[in-house]
Amino acid sequence: MSQKPLNVALIGYKFMGKAHSQAWRTVGRFFDLDLDPVMKVVCGRDAKAVAEFADRWGWEDSSADWEEVVKRDDVDVVDISTPGSTHAEISIAAAQAGKHVFCEKPLTFTVAEGKKMLAAVREAGVKHMVNFNYRLCPAVSLAKQMIDSGSIGEVRHIRCTYLQDWLVDPEFPMNWRLRQEAAGSGAHGDLGAHSIDLARFLVGEIGEVVGTKKTFIKERPAEGTSSGLTAQAGEGTEKVTVDDASLFLAKFTNGALGSFEATRLAPGRKNFNRFEINGSAGSLVWCFEELNCLDFYSTADPSTQQGFRRIIATEGDHPYAGNWWPPGHMLGYDHGFTHAAYNLTQSIAKDKPCVPDFRDGAQCVAVLEAVDASIESSSWAKVEMID
Amino acid sequence: MSQKPLNVALIGYKFMGKAHSQAWRTVGRFFDLDLDPVMKVVCGRDAKAVAEFADRWGWEDSSADWEEVVKRDDVDVVDISTPGSTHAEISIAAAQAGKHVFCEKPLTFTVAEGKKMLAAVREAGVKHMVNFNYRLCPAVSLAKQMIDSGSIGEVRHIRCTYLQDWLVDPEFPMNWRLRQEAAGSGAHGDLGAHSIDLARFLVGEIGEVVGTKKTFIKERPAEGTSSGLTAQAGEGTEKVTVDDASLFLAKFTNGALGSFEATRLAPGRKNFNRFEINGSAGSLVWCFEELNCLDFYSTADPSTQQGFRRIIATEGDHPYAGNWWPPGHMLGYDHGFTHAAYNLTQSIAKDKPCVPDFRDGAQCVAVLEAVDASIESSSWAKVEMID
Amino acid sequence: MSQKPLNVALIGYKFMGKAHSQAWRTVGRFFDLDLDPVMKVVCGRDAKAVAEFADRWGWEDSSADWEEVVKRDDVDVVDISTPGSTHAEISIAAAQAGKHVFCEKPLTFTVAEGKKMLAAVREAGVKHMVNFNYRLCPAVSLAKQMIDSGSIGEVRHIRCTYLQDWLVDPEFPMNWRLRQEAAGSGAHGDLGAHSIDLARFLVGEIGEVVGTKKTFIKERPAEGTSSGLTAQAGEGTEKVTVDDASLFLAKFTNGALGSFEATRLAPGRKNFNRFEINGSAGSLVWCFEELNCLDFYSTADPSTQQGFRRIIATEGDHPYAGNWWPPGHMLGYDHGFTHAAYNLTQSIAKDKPCVPDFRDGAQCVAVLEAVDASIESSSWAKVEMID
Amino acid sequence: MSQKPLNVALIGYKFMGKAHSQAWRTVGRFFDLDLDPVMKVVCGRDAKAVAEFADRWGWEDSSADWEEVVKRDDVDVVDISTPGSTHAEISIAAAQAGKHVFCEKPLTFTVAEGKKMLAAVREAGVKHMVNFNYRLCPAVSLAKQMIDSGSIGEVRHIRCTYLQDWLVDPEFPMNWRLRQEAAGSGAHGDLGAHSIDLARFLVGEIGEVVGTKKTFIKERPAEGTSSGLTAQAGEGTEKVTVDDASLFLAKFTNGALGSFEATRLAPGRKNFNRFEINGSAGSLVWCFEELNCLDFYSTADPSTQQGFRRIIATEGDHPYAGNWWPPGHMLGYDHGFTHAAYNLTQSIAKDKPCVPDFRDGAQCVAVLEAVDASIESSSWAKVEMID
Repeated sequence: MSQKPLNVALIGYKFMGKAHSQAWRTVGRFFDLDLDPVMKVVCGRDAKAVAEFADRWGWEDSSADWEEVVKRDDVDVVDISTPGSTHAEISIAAAQAGKHVFCEKPLTFTVAEGKKMLAAVREAGVKHMVNFNYRLCPAVSLAKQMIDSGSIGEVRHIRCTYLQDWLVDPEFPMNWRLRQEAAGSGAHGDLGAHSIDLARFLVGEIGEVVGTKKTFIKERPAEGTSSGLTAQAGEGTEKVTVDDASLFLAKFTNGALGSFEATRLAPGRKNFNRFEINGSAGSLVWCFEELNCLDFYSTADPSTQQGFRRIIATEGDHPYAGNWWPPGHMLGYDHGFTHAAYNLTQSIAKDKPCVPDFRDGAQCVAVLEAVDASIESSSWAKVEMID
Repeated sequence: MSQKPLNVALIGYKFMGKAHSQAWRTVGRFFDLDLDPVMKVVCGRDAKAVAEFADRWGWEDSSADWEEVVKRDDVDVVDISTPGSTHAEISIAAAQAGKHVFCEKPLTFTVAEGKKMLAAVREAGVKHMVNFNYRLCPAVSLAKQMIDSGSIGEVRHIRCTYLQDWLVDPEFPMNWRLRQEAAGSGAHGDLGAHSIDLARFLVGEIGEVVGTKKTFIKERPAEGTSSGLTAQAGEGTEKVTVDDASLFLAKFTNGALGSFEATRLAPGRKNFNRFEINGSAGSLVWCFEELNCLDFYSTADPSTQQGFRRIIATEGDHPYAGNWWPPGHMLGYDHGFTHAAYNLTQSIAKDKPCVPDFRDGAQCVAVLEAVDASIESSSWAKVEMID
Repeated sequence: MSQKPLNVALIGYKFMGKAHSQAWRTVGRFFDLDLDPVMKVVCGRDAKAVAEFADRWGWEDSSADWEEVVKRDDVDVVDISTPGSTHAEISIAAAQAGKHVFCEKPLTFTVAEGKKMLAAVREAGVKHMVNFNYRLCPAVSLAKQMIDSGSIGEVRHIRCTYLQDWLVDPEFPMNWRLRQEAAGSGAHGDLGAHSIDLARFLVGEIGEVVGTKKTFIKERPAEGTSSGLTAQAGEGTEKVTVDDASLFLAKFTNGALGSFEATRLAPGRKNFNRFEINGSAGSLVWCFEELNCLDFYSTADPSTQQGFRRIIATEGDHPYAGNWWPPGHMLGYDHGFTHAAYNLTQSIAKDKPCVPDFRDGAQCVAVLEAVDASIESSSWAKVEMID
Repeated sequence: MSQKPLNVALIGYKFMGKAHSQAWRTVGRFFDLDLDPVMKVVCGRDAKAVAEFADRWGWEDSSADWEEVVKRDDVDVVDISTPGSTHAEISIAAAQAGKHVFCEKPLTFTVAEGKKMLAAVREAGVKHMVNFNYRLCPAVSLAKQMIDSGSIGEVRHIRCTYLQDWLVDPEFPMNWRLRQEAAGSGAHGDLGAHSIDLARFLVGEIGEVVGTKKTFIKERPAEGTSSGLTAQAGEGTEKVTVDDASLFLAKFTNGALGSFEATRLAPGRKNFNRFEINGSAGSLVWCFEELNCLDFYSTADPSTQQGFRRIIATEGDHPYAGNWWPPGHMLGYDHGFTHAAYNLTQSIAKDKPCVPDFRDGAQCVAVLEAVDASIESSSWAKVEMID
């Protein structure tokens, strides 16, 4: 590669750390880049484990001290894949050190904190991007293009469901995702945040919401307790402090209506992140469980030949797809992360704004927070608009 | 037939009148009955048109005077397939004349009126049934059996959507379904009522709701105006006085959460009456557009072999199905109406309660009304429970 | 009805007899006819049973003597729904008596006999129609219109599968469909005949074939033996004398290639009568298990928006559909039989040729027979073309 | 990594070269290996292009001389991703140099040559594997496990279709895949070979076949001619010397029947590699266009709850899946190649036979060749069994 290097520091090395590492390893293989991403250093709390991770994934160095890492001269980008409770502190420090920041979602837990993060990256003049990876599935990017070009007319309805089932078993033990202090919320922030981002991306800003959340399974075996073994009553169990499910209705500022539901208690739904959008001239439907496909209905088709058409978004002229394989050679979950690495790299190289950025991340938090406010008040709540 | 006759009077002879007529013509052919339904008289406002209808469909007689018809000695059952604004008056008169009453949905427009209707049929001691026909698709009846027998455990979620697209074209002209005085409401009472009934049938009573309604296309060409010809601005148009779409969230008294959406502005959705139910041990999904199929997921299947299984509910041991054709010989829309005629006939013959009855019809109205109240107050509203 | 009557005699009153009766009862209700079909007489071997059937289904009269019935002066149409072994004799007698003939498929078992039947109806100058009911599903009729209008260009491929599973259980007992003398063949003539007819209807004449047949389960419990009870070895069992499955390849005279498979041993396939057709400009896919839907792919769509589109063939401008219900109100198995009754009645009323007629029926037999010849010779066999 | 290195030489760097490179880059990240694959050298005819490829994909070295490469001391595995016409020569040379051989499919074009290749690797005592990548989709591997454990009983039917549409446009220009000398055959060897391998993997050996092939579009614009510009008649066009489509029927040695169809002229089918298998106790269906899903029907389910169940093969206890992401995080095309690299690496490390090996590759060629023989003779042809 003759391009200038773009040195990346990854903070966090669990599920998201693997996904980000695979993206950085892969992006320069399939995409033509104007900078050459270098996997400089990965950072985690357990020095030994993170060193092993670095070795396995091809990071040049590893560290257990993120505060030092984000200041290193040989780091250009800080990629944050840690739990949400840590995003603000790391992002702000990285920005203050003059690093571009790539952050996992949800950006953070409160609008107040989101604004501080946004202020920090703006003040530092660095690039900032949030990893709402589902935007980057070719079929979803295609949906955006089609909406922008008027294929379905004026949008009137969006219905989003993000359903999983990994918490159906009441013996599934506690982990950080079930504790409010680490995760902020449950299905609401973990899954709902994705749906909100897709809705904002495809439809526009949400102005008002009303909703509800519920924790159906209120305590679970303590972490480390093997699933399937019931702990003694009261002993060896821990209270679940986040929601299992979150539902809300939304009024968009452009007049569209939305319906949102996120749950981790839907047996059979593994990663059922789905939207259906109805406009004045057509409809679009997508679901991650068939991620390569976009269903499109057009009222412009001849009257006897109208129907939902399943577009397999793997053609050379579909977004991102031409960089991979021939048509019909399906992409998977991790390919979207590579698209994010591509977008970020090129935004930095060409000094163009990142999409979605920290304002998008913060605005998503504003919607989550408005739902909480609506629950508090048992009524519709306005969503704060962040500049 | 050696059975005693059951003389039926049909009030109304348009879309629903055809569907009811076909049911009465057909039921004794495929089902063994303990009474023999006789198509005695059909009634409508246009004497000539209703006489032609009677001739075509095999009604022995026709009439333009419903008040007379409901009192005829040779009538046992009054079958009401007229617009909702007339249900109360006809039902009450029929009950007072000692006739069993079979009524289209929505039962009526207000809880107050629903209670009067319920009181009338109870006082008269007649059988009363509301035609929530979707309950009677074999796949939906099977879903009920499976929920009752514990196949999906304790129900936690139901999401109902009833989507159509016949009003997408803004040049589609006015008709009675778009006027509040005749129809009561738009998608809310026409489509939402079906979803509410399915949810009550399958999950239980709804305790609280919050929602919104919207009319996206606020005026339309006057009736008689041919679609496609735009009327002069302000001239030849009429104000639409019902909603195009209705959305609400629900808390069931048993702790389940529900999401409901009805719209007539979803391009490509023709009669997309769908529910998904998630329980503690499985899920069930049904959609009228594939009415013979029920999708079932069970957490009891071996771990590597779990998946949504598509049950084609046409086997001999599925509800109603054995009376028709061999397995895989699909049923359509009208077959459900025949099941209603069967149920009603047998309830009368065996003097057993009808399901669903006027209380079900009135309780459905109570939910619709609570949504309206929630819109009025911008907050959650309690649903009145009708005894 | 002010139309002249069209008096119908039905021969046979089992599964097909029910389906035909329901068609004749229903056709004048939904379709405008130029003759008024009258259910004059039904005929079967068991006088008592057929009298009960006549009573139940509304036939004016019943008889156990078909030879008398086909000569009755008050009979215009003879509708034959008996097993295939009887079709030739009854058809020829009916034609000789000057009656129009409507015959179930397969028309008969041999080309020689088919030619005699064809000669008889032609000589008599009566209308003749074979009940290939699947042609008459609106979605299939739409496919024909689309192919004729060039929507998919020049046809190159058709692949037909007709799969059922009712013989999977080896304890399922013998019946007439498993005996060569009554049924002629097994899956080959029962299911394969439907596929061949659809292929001829949609693609054209088949010129050459090569195939194979197999009986996997070679003996079964004798008729009357309750399924599930294994008969003693050698005792109480009967040899199956027809095929369980039939497969063949075909070269059409227009250059297209075809693949055909029929089996009754495909677990989970209830009535899986499916075709996929690929042309130079698009594709069409249909399956009876989703009978209202036609999947259409067009290479004329914009390049990024191509996909199989699912047409729900229930719109007012789809074949037959406008006579039934509003869009999205699905049709079932029996509706196709009503379309046949409509077509036959109108062909007689307007003195126009029936489609499909006895030549179609005989040509279908010629294909079946050519497959048998190919099996005999272990090589490709030419299909006889019947004038 | 503390494992001993496994040095890999890749021959070929186009579509397949990319897929193999991505596999070698990725395998050690997600899978625990007993040897450490090292991307030692990549080889191609254009020295400059292959050097760029090496740089981009992380191969240590590049070369334009495959004969030298396969003899290098620092090479343990020769990975052949070139066109089929070159497989035999390279494989045999590699084996003679004592290298393990990993070869793309089809193994070669003739049984005679396949036997020589098999003899060479056996004589050399090296590991040999053919890259039938579709076996390695988790859903297909799961199908194999289920068949082996009796989930669908005795197999009676398999129907395989492998449909693509990239040659539908007659202006699509010539390339090596359309010339017999380079590609051996068209759809037959390119797509049909995959179906044959899946059938052999899942059902067993094929004993007899009968088939046909056809070239619908007999000449195309010469290579380099831009698609869309029609060359002058006779000028600038080239004759297509391979088939567009291939169909055949098969009798398996265990009594099962098979149907196979491969075409590149099926509009809308992008990579529609599908099989359906029917056994005495159930069925299995898979299609690459929904590669993560396996549809399973079991006659052992309760009678009212039988249905095809869609298993999403991404659970931790599904083959390979647990090494990637959480359930429902779908895999794509390239993941299968990584599984091949894993299997090969572990077979070498543990000195166990590879699956599928060169015998499998050669036996697949024997089936292809038997189809050609059957076309020659217009009759059924026996398949040679290779020891």
